[in-house]
Amino acid sequence: MRLKDSYTLPAAADMHVHLRNAPGPIAALVTPTIRKAGIDTVFVMPNLAPRPVVSVAEALAYQRSLQALDPDVTYLMSLYLHESITPDEIRKAKAAGIAGVKAYPRGATTNSQWGVVSFEPFDEVLRAMEEEGIVLNLHGEVPSSAADGVTVMNAEARFLPVLRGLVDKYPRLKIVLEHCTTADAVEAVRSLGENVVGTITAHHLSLLVDDWSANVHHYCKPSAKTPEDRRALLNAVVTSNGKFFLGTDSAPHDITAKKGKGNTAAGVFTQPYALGYVLTALEEALERGDIPESSLSSADSRDEAVLRGFLSEYGRRFYGLPPATRQIRLMRGTATVAESLKGEEGVEVVPFRAGEQTWGVEWL
Amino acid sequence: MRLKDSYTLPAAADMHVHLRNAPGPIAALVTPTIRKAGIDTVFVMPNLAPRPVVSVAEALAYQRSLQALDPDVTYLMSLYLHESITPDEIRKAKAAGIAGVKAYPRGATTNSQWGVVSFEPFDEVLRAMEEEGIVLNLHGEVPSSAADGVTVMNAEARFLPVLRGLVDKYPRLKIVLEHCTTADAVEAVRSLGENVVGTITAHHLSLLVDDWSANVHHYCKPSAKTPEDRRALLNAVVTSNGKFFLGTDSAPHDITAKKGKGNTAAGVFTQPYALGYVLTALEEALERGDIPESSLSSADSRDEAVLRGFLSEYGRRFYGLPPATRQIRLMRGTATVAESLKGEEGVEVVPFRAGEQTWGVEWL
Repeated sequence: MRLKDSYTLPAAADMHVHLRNAPGPIAALVTPTIRKAGIDTVFVMPNLAPRPVVSVAEALAYQRSLQALDPDVTYLMSLYLHESITPDEIRKAKAAGIAGVKAYPRGATTNSQWGVVSFEPFDEVLRAMEEEGIVLNLHGEVPSSAADGVTVMNAEARFLPVLRGLVDKYPRLKIVLEHCTTADAVEAVRSLGENVVGTITAHHLSLLVDDWSANVHHYCKPSAKTPEDRRALLNAVVTSNGKFFLGTDSAPHDITAKKGKGNTAAGVFTQPYALGYVLTALEEALERGDIPESSLSSADSRDEAVLRGFLSEYGRRFYGLPPATRQIRLMRGTATVAESLKGEEGVEVVPFRAGEQTWGVEWL
Repeated sequence: MRLKDSYTLPAAADMHVHLRNAPGPIAALVTPTIRKAGIDTVFVMPNLAPRPVVSVAEALAYQRSLQALDPDVTYLMSLYLHESITPDEIRKAKAAGIAGVKAYPRGATTNSQWGVVSFEPFDEVLRAMEEEGIVLNLHGEVPSSAADGVTVMNAEARFLPVLRGLVDKYPRLKIVLEHCTTADAVEAVRSLGENVVGTITAHHLSLLVDDWSANVHHYCKPSAKTPEDRRALLNAVVTSNGKFFLGTDSAPHDITAKKGKGNTAAGVFTQPYALGYVLTALEEALERGDIPESSLSSADSRDEAVLRGFLSEYGRRFYGLPPATRQIRLMRGTATVAESLKGEEGVEVVPFRAGEQTWGVEWL
């Protein structure tokens, strides 16, 4: 069974993107690809280096720089959970339209060196977030530790008790478990109240540990895991009912950070073709039998409802945004993924599934 | 607790090496590093490309080419288990001093495309090997399969029933489970008779999945796994009693196969510094508490017994070789691992732990 050859949908929202420092050559390269992908709203991650976004003023300045690159995208801004943030800053953030505060467990991923060791010292900030309705965005991994038996393969599962602890302590806090990669994470999110949701990336709907083992462009944090985990993610997409929505974690790195002398930077770049990757992954899942055919049936427009919800509606609703006003058309096989994107200052970023045919996007 | 600063030991034997095609630039580069590492005997893998070693004539020609590169090394030769091999070829192999036949499950690793799908068709060959005392060397992984839930992380554990099946069917067959990487494999080998042993590499005594996730030079098949698995391997070394011995699986790849445009070749290059890596890994294990201090106590020369057995004696005994006649001295910190080894035709191979201090080797 295949999907239909084209879909008309509301513009998509990508609730987890990395656009890097702006102004800057990577931001200049990737920001204009957001709308090309059929997306008009993005939640922007604050883990910039050498300094993360830790104040409202910085977030708004970053937002203005991004607007200069493409004014027709809505940029939901976030702060990096850091000891310098006060409850008062949270209230200012709310007033300024900041959408969330991202918590990085220290040492778990790219630019997490200023991150959280324990949530205890953030009690007042978290209470202010709960009151103000500012979302807590969680990178849901504990740092790897040989002594504790934690590796990239179980770091997410080991984080879930931390998630449950936060929910117990701050029961009204809106929480996104970002980039779920395991059956355990899906189950945890499902078991919690409606103020707790999960984002799912495009690439984790396709990749397994084997794929990144031999391909640096497939390596990311949290890393892709087992066939059972991928199946759980795919089923979370088609049975989401608002609990899961798209957050690509598109993470552009210059080719030298992937293929250069040093260690491999974590991140898969999916921004320009994000929706096509999702549709391809769902079709591949149908072929493998990982999701039931009925879950994407076109006879009862179940396919359109799933795509509309996961790609556009559920994320906007969770962040309190109105529905999309513009529409897009996705057309099978009318685009080819570039071998790489080249920008100013010699930067070069290799996209996921480089060279493959994918779904083209038209704005209506 | 640290090891002593120097050890005098019999020359080592490395019962799993990849020397690549000879003549050839990589063979010319790495073969002379065998003795520099304190090793005088190697078991040479037959997975050459574009054609594996499938006949006695080819194995002997390969052996002569290696002898031309360094005549003072004993090269134990092997055949690649392949449908073209007959029971008669096995008897010829025995007469010619061929030491083993390596079975690669098809699709499991480098140059395994001519490998075994099922052991059924090889029944007569395996019976001939059992009779002749020719060793069966197993790459102990099943190929990854999303449908069957097999990934690089559980491919070895999933192979163990195959090992047990072979032992049941050919109870006197000498079997080496090559490059054990899991607690499950260690336990399986321990549970089987004395005709079944395991080799352990130097790098698997150090590496975890996290290490290869972000470093292509640490990626190999079978891949390094969890802290629990590493602990089991380290304990297998110090409690071997002949069941486990060194087989480095040193696998040189040109830098372009690691950092070039395509996928990452699997393999860690350890040949020139193999013994130093083992000693460093054992010391690090002592520091972490992964192995008990008593297991490498110098007061009762337990340390020397462990090193002598694992590095030199147990492998030779299993393959029916006499003890080493020459001695080596290992001295802490008197060598530095090269950043890379460069050879003819522009080849460049990056060794494990490049740039680090390691144990120097002196022939006595």
